[in-house]
Amino acid sequence: MTKTAAIVGGGVIGGGWAARFAIMGWDVRIFDPDPEAERKIAEVMSGAERALPMLYEVPLPARGQITFHDSIADAVKGARYVQESVPERLEIKHATFAEIQKTLDPEAVIGSSTSGFKPSELQAGSADPTQILVTHPFNPVYLLPLVELVPGDTHDPRAVAWATKVLTEIGMKPIQVRAEIDAHIADRFLEAVWREALWLVKDGIATTEEIDDAIRYGFGLRWAQMGLFETYRVAGGEAGMRHFMAQFGPALKWPWTKLMDVPDFTDELVDLITAQSDAQSGHMGIRDLEKLRDNNLVAILRALKGQGAAAGALLQDHDDHLRQPLEETSPLITVRRKVPVDWTDLNGHMNEGRYGQVFSDASEEVMFHVGADRAYIAAGNSYFTAENTIKYLEETHAGEDIIVETKVLLGEGKKLKLGHEMKRASDGAVLATCEQFLLHVSLETRKSCPPMPEVEAAVARLAKAHATAD
Amino acid sequence: MTKTAAIVGGGVIGGGWAARFAIMGWDVRIFDPDPEAERKIAEVMSGAERALPMLYEVPLPARGQITFHDSIADAVKGARYVQESVPERLEIKHATFAEIQKTLDPEAVIGSSTSGFKPSELQAGSADPTQILVTHPFNPVYLLPLVELVPGDTHDPRAVAWATKVLTEIGMKPIQVRAEIDAHIADRFLEAVWREALWLVKDGIATTEEIDDAIRYGFGLRWAQMGLFETYRVAGGEAGMRHFMAQFGPALKWPWTKLMDVPDFTDELVDLITAQSDAQSGHMGIRDLEKLRDNNLVAILRALKGQGAAAGALLQDHDDHLRQPLEETSPLITVRRKVPVDWTDLNGHMNEGRYGQVFSDASEEVMFHVGADRAYIAAGNSYFTAENTIKYLEETHAGEDIIVETKVLLGEGKKLKLGHEMKRASDGAVLATCEQFLLHVSLETRKSCPPMPEVEAAVARLAKAHATAD
Repeated sequence: MTKTAAIVGGGVIGGGWAARFAIMGWDVRIFDPDPEAERKIAEVMSGAERALPMLYEVPLPARGQITFHDSIADAVKGARYVQESVPERLEIKHATFAEIQKTLDPEAVIGSSTSGFKPSELQAGSADPTQILVTHPFNPVYLLPLVELVPGDTHDPRAVAWATKVLTEIGMKPIQVRAEIDAHIADRFLEAVWREALWLVKDGIATTEEIDDAIRYGFGLRWAQMGLFETYRVAGGEAGMRHFMAQFGPALKWPWTKLMDVPDFTDELVDLITAQSDAQSGHMGIRDLEKLRDNNLVAILRALKGQGAAAGALLQDHDDHLRQPLEETSPLITVRRKVPVDWTDLNGHMNEGRYGQVFSDASEEVMFHVGADRAYIAAGNSYFTAENTIKYLEETHAGEDIIVETKVLLGEGKKLKLGHEMKRASDGAVLATCEQFLLHVSLETRKSCPPMPEVEAAVARLAKAHATAD
Repeated sequence: MTKTAAIVGGGVIGGGWAARFAIMGWDVRIFDPDPEAERKIAEVMSGAERALPMLYEVPLPARGQITFHDSIADAVKGARYVQESVPERLEIKHATFAEIQKTLDPEAVIGSSTSGFKPSELQAGSADPTQILVTHPFNPVYLLPLVELVPGDTHDPRAVAWATKVLTEIGMKPIQVRAEIDAHIADRFLEAVWREALWLVKDGIATTEEIDDAIRYGFGLRWAQMGLFETYRVAGGEAGMRHFMAQFGPALKWPWTKLMDVPDFTDELVDLITAQSDAQSGHMGIRDLEKLRDNNLVAILRALKGQGAAAGALLQDHDDHLRQPLEETSPLITVRRKVPVDWTDLNGHMNEGRYGQVFSDASEEVMFHVGADRAYIAAGNSYFTAENTIKYLEETHAGEDIIVETKVLLGEGKKLKLGHEMKRASDGAVLATCEQFLLHVSLETRKSCPPMPEVEAAVARLAKAHATAD
């Protein structure tokens, strides 16, 4: 396909579009009258270049070329797709579309980033209204896939098909809105929540941070993976969506809000929602849905834990609270844990790499035990892993409890050799073994050197105890 | 601390509480008149046993004992914490509290799971109102950490402190609501969104599935990690929260909704929100906040990708769309990618285990290339990794582009030996090497066996080409 897109209007949104198109291999021609446009878009591009390719396991296409142009006529030359992100004022939008349509290829499509206007409003007065669609993205455009695609009443199905193809090609998820409406879908929710949040702050019920916490430690985690109706379908339990509505529907009449116009909860509405929810996931039983939900929540919570962010920070703290000092047994029991769902491939087997992570966690326990802990590292010393040999003996699955038994096989001067056995907790079967060579290094010189005397003594003590064991 | 909790009222919520307490080492005494209570709670417990321990890297305490009791008086015996989850009818709540308080330890606290009632309503008529608090959880209680803790006007700070301590101890995040209000905080948002969603379905704007997609491919991902105000602070860019409100505040007056009562956007309200947002994260610059946001989004999106769920399914499809067949060079270039943020520890170094994953991905490319692909595996044959030896030569960081060069060192009968070199793309520095032994196995007998002739021939061809190279 022709891979030239024009971006009319820069800023955070236009810049995000430009970055996504370019990283996905499209040439991008930009018009933005802001004298700072190049700098601003370069900043967005730099964030996008760092983050977007991280989502992929495969190489991305060769980057498209980004060029800046002094006129709309020049920018849209050769473009098969134009994304408009000018300020949210209808007269500016109309003037921009008129200028674009003077020279644009009649086969091209113009998508508007508007969050509020309906396509009929945008199209009013246009020479070719069917060329103009709403394609409303979400910030950051280079990471969030959602695009609300609103064709409106006056549309050409080929234009809708082409926009869908282009947006999918650059990794987005266009959702076609069935009828035009102010603010489309998502922003109606965002506005509703924003209004409630303003009341809560104004009335002193909660601060901005407490409100953010009430979202990101709770339903925000549910919505990231299932959205609204699917979450409630699961909440309805075995009886499903109809039961959920019977139970919670009437609560809408409670004085829970200052905003009171509520749709009548008629049989027709209940039937409509139940039928749509059945079409969405009626093929799955409640236990399957619950398992999907739990797997997704575990994976998201663990992802946040890896970043030390939001609910993940709480999990890190709770780990620290629960952690017990290592008992000096022979062998040491360095790991006791359950294999989480984010460690397995889609067949449910633990990924090869995660065996390495388990053994790395095991050696970290030894490090802390001998005194090569965070303070020791902060003082400029550490053990680095030089070589690992892992033998894979049995498959391991999500949900299994595993332990690792560790012996210090050698601990002399800067050299440390650990022998790990990973076992299934239920029957003691050995799942894998690992021989791990570590070298003590100075973090200043980045060269190997002997450990501090107290660490050396602790390592020697363990090596001696483990040599005489069984 | 005394670790006995009583659960009054089972169901999905009471069962979730029971599971969380028991898994965190508390003895749990349950009263629930439902004759099916034991079965229902066992089902919740089974889901919780599978999922909750997956969140932790450390061993959890020994499980507490769960017992069922025929009366409230018996259930609350010895309990220092009672969680009430009976139906949402005030007269049932009052009767339940009266019964609990007849025999409960005066030092104990009663938390109510109510989503709608205010503490003053719950406390009305109680012999000791200060013993009763709202502690409102979110389903699934065993995974989501949020608890809205509402003390109300009549409260004893020691009771609030004790409830906070207990909830934190079992891994939850109690957020103390500053003033009582119908539906607390989160359910006001959920109700607001539910009302809008009902309108959208009723008016034919979108189906339940399209609405769920509009959430989980878009702002749901933002809310899971930053919530509402922090997201908007970042959206405000360099000028921050005040700028965001100046830009978007007036939009509240637009005809975007059928629900029209909106707080006046006074200077006082703008000042209040700006000050709270500054207190929340004014210590961080906009670029730092953007980077945090992007890291969290990348980590969450990749977590969902691992599960093949929601926006993660889109990423899997896009990977497949972008994937190019392996060119038969010598050596093979089996991996070209960027190191994502979820592969690194908090110092930004790639985790030891992820080196193993990169090499595992590299060998999978070779497998597909020689014809040992999904269809081959589905037909009952596969290569299993028997042993990996990884030499760690240089540190690798998030955001770095890496490649892997792979040679077939040996390919004879059921034996396959691959040699991988992982290099930094920018300067070709070798970061790590891996020797990988694989065995061809029959998935039926689980024993080693020779590969199919076409796969054997392809492996032999590569081995020959790589033996004569450089």
